[in-house]
Amino acid sequence: MKIYKDLSPSPRIIMTPGPVEVDPRVLRAMSYPILGQFDPEFTGLMNESMEMLRDIFETNNQWTYPVDGTSRSGIEAVLTSLIEHGDKVLIPIFGRFGYLLQEIAERCLAEVVTLEKEWGSVFDPEEIIRAIHREKPAIVAIVHGETSTGRLQPLREIGNACRELDILLVVDAVATLSGIPLKVDSWMLDAVIGGTQKCLSIPPGMAPITYNERAERKIQQRKKVERGLLVSGSPVSIGGHKSIQSNYLDLSQLQDYWSPARLNHHTEMTSMLYALREGMRIVLEEGLPARFDRHLEHERALVAGLEAMGLTLFGDSSCKLPVVTCINIPDGIDGESVRSMLLQQFGIEIASSFGPLKGKIWRIGTMGYSCSKRNVLLTLGALEAVLKRHGLSDLGGDGVQAAMDQYAIVN
Amino acid sequence: MKIYKDLSPSPRIIMTPGPVEVDPRVLRAMSYPILGQFDPEFTGLMNESMEMLRDIFETNNQWTYPVDGTSRSGIEAVLTSLIEHGDKVLIPIFGRFGYLLQEIAERCLAEVVTLEKEWGSVFDPEEIIRAIHREKPAIVAIVHGETSTGRLQPLREIGNACRELDILLVVDAVATLSGIPLKVDSWMLDAVIGGTQKCLSIPPGMAPITYNERAERKIQQRKKVERGLLVSGSPVSIGGHKSIQSNYLDLSQLQDYWSPARLNHHTEMTSMLYALREGMRIVLEEGLPARFDRHLEHERALVAGLEAMGLTLFGDSSCKLPVVTCINIPDGIDGESVRSMLLQQFGIEIASSFGPLKGKIWRIGTMGYSCSKRNVLLTLGALEAVLKRHGLSDLGGDGVQAAMDQYAIVN
Repeated sequence: MKIYKDLSPSPRIIMTPGPVEVDPRVLRAMSYPILGQFDPEFTGLMNESMEMLRDIFETNNQWTYPVDGTSRSGIEAVLTSLIEHGDKVLIPIFGRFGYLLQEIAERCLAEVVTLEKEWGSVFDPEEIIRAIHREKPAIVAIVHGETSTGRLQPLREIGNACRELDILLVVDAVATLSGIPLKVDSWMLDAVIGGTQKCLSIPPGMAPITYNERAERKIQQRKKVERGLLVSGSPVSIGGHKSIQSNYLDLSQLQDYWSPARLNHHTEMTSMLYALREGMRIVLEEGLPARFDRHLEHERALVAGLEAMGLTLFGDSSCKLPVVTCINIPDGIDGESVRSMLLQQFGIEIASSFGPLKGKIWRIGTMGYSCSKRNVLLTLGALEAVLKRHGLSDLGGDGVQAAMDQYAIVN
Repeated sequence: MKIYKDLSPSPRIIMTPGPVEVDPRVLRAMSYPILGQFDPEFTGLMNESMEMLRDIFETNNQWTYPVDGTSRSGIEAVLTSLIEHGDKVLIPIFGRFGYLLQEIAERCLAEVVTLEKEWGSVFDPEEIIRAIHREKPAIVAIVHGETSTGRLQPLREIGNACRELDILLVVDAVATLSGIPLKVDSWMLDAVIGGTQKCLSIPPGMAPITYNERAERKIQQRKKVERGLLVSGSPVSIGGHKSIQSNYLDLSQLQDYWSPARLNHHTEMTSMLYALREGMRIVLEEGLPARFDRHLEHERALVAGLEAMGLTLFGDSSCKLPVVTCINIPDGIDGESVRSMLLQQFGIEIASSFGPLKGKIWRIGTMGYSCSKRNVLLTLGALEAVLKRHGLSDLGGDGVQAAMDQYAIVN
């Protein structure tokens, strides 16, 4: 029999746009023994998690809970529950994750209309508002923080316009939740998906979502009850509306599971829920404003260091996503070789990108627990050394010193 | 600000058909710091997990990996990836989870044909084989261990018949994987879904699956590549076959992610993968034959104890699922009151059931780490005391002593 060794992962500084390092408090929470899914102690933890998540999304939406899957399961749950065959869906795209919205909407048999921006920029809200008036979609779906390009899309005006025209606005906030401001209610976002393995800093595996009564109305029209749960009779279906094409990601059933009725659906991910709850406690203890400030502070130091080293940043600086910094790979440098040396020799992970940006940029995340002075300084120092080892000895100044200046570290 | 208390779940003996108790080794594995999803150390752990899972499914199938969601996400991934609009799918149903297969297949727009058996029994394979010849379905989908009724469906003859007629056989083995024999290759099962929170005894959150080249062929005909990952050109699609209606549960994309190409899809659930790997190490160290024997041994003791107490078992004993024991709730007893007293006063959880069996039976699981002498003896003693407190003082003999006799415990 083959022997599989004891688990013993090497220590890492993870400076990617996710997954990022996890607070030891969260890791410890996952090591507690599990409770049954209908144990009142466990359903109590589920209810508390909904409360905390409302605070983090800055919403009063009743339906604010995690979907049991990674971030894209939450995106698909929202889209597949809202989009009926033939619904017109407008998707403004400015990077990879906009295409993911398109891909999922197409699989829901939406009539998809896209707007596209060159990777590295975002939309002027007015452009989107004009398209909304022209296309009159049922749904607009858009990314808030696009990690593939490191850009941040302003949403407030788009929310206003959608509400006026009674259009549902769906927002992928996977990269931004708890790292930069995201005001679900005051921006009038109808359904929003957050991420766990990014600014929330818990391991990948859940997708926190929230949606308001406008979204719920559409979902409820398509509701079904599972046959195997009926005491008698046949499944409920409300005439005229097609049922949701997924069972696992059917929000009408998920919200029944998260309601006081606790109608059985999947088996809630116990240990991941422990992690989510602990991660959210940490966020609320820090406080959202302080947390947003922390993310800005370390971004500033990182950028100061990179620029002092003579590196240039990718994309339009007026819409830079604070939690992801994209760097143009200098001419003649093999980006993957640099990443590999950083990982193998220094235990530091940074990211590459996708599609048209593959091989052209590096991406450094400053998210959640990974977003710290220690990590920024160590990463800058290591990157500088690795670039020198790759023949770039005359890039510019001293990146670490520039970041220390930014932090106002004095002797 | 509301204060949320430190996590501190009460200790529980979990004797339900899942989720069940988790080995402390698995809990500890989840508390290790995470690795990035493309860190070679992590992809190495992913590859090892595929190897181990092949041993546990008793298969040589290349595509043997977990889907990132709870068990039903794996069921839906297999069905939605295999079923094209209008495919005829034959589903023999003998409990709740058969209806779940029907529900999901209908959402995939299959032409569903069902066979039904009274809850508490299973099918004679010949009945199913006759239906296969009559209906000539493209796919047969069936449950192996039906936890809602505690029954076990024989599969070998059905596998033979499907192979002869070139029909794909999909099996829900969520309840049976690593608890009772499940021979994927020798029984000629084409696609099989296992569970984690049952006999494997890791927390809910992943769905191990395996499928062979016959299933892969059908999946590959429907393959698409995500637009946001393309360097240039448009998404690949192979003429004539409709693309899979889910992105998150699209096995053609998932297998690319699990292949050496590691084509980006979701972000693998790091901590859950640590748990799965450790749980599988424990299974392989014990060895499948010894593990199956252990499940039978504790079932025998539990049944001896229950019968000595004068309780009767639900359902046809010739097809009893060894890992779930269903008990008829005695006349005049409020089943939920008994369950609640067991949980609140003794910290022991047993289950009720669904649909037509709601309020009629209790279900006791003996699965994985929960399947132990200690748990069986403590559960019998507590149940006896609780029934007495509910007025049933003259049920029969002494359940704990009968179980101790079965274990041949002498003074």
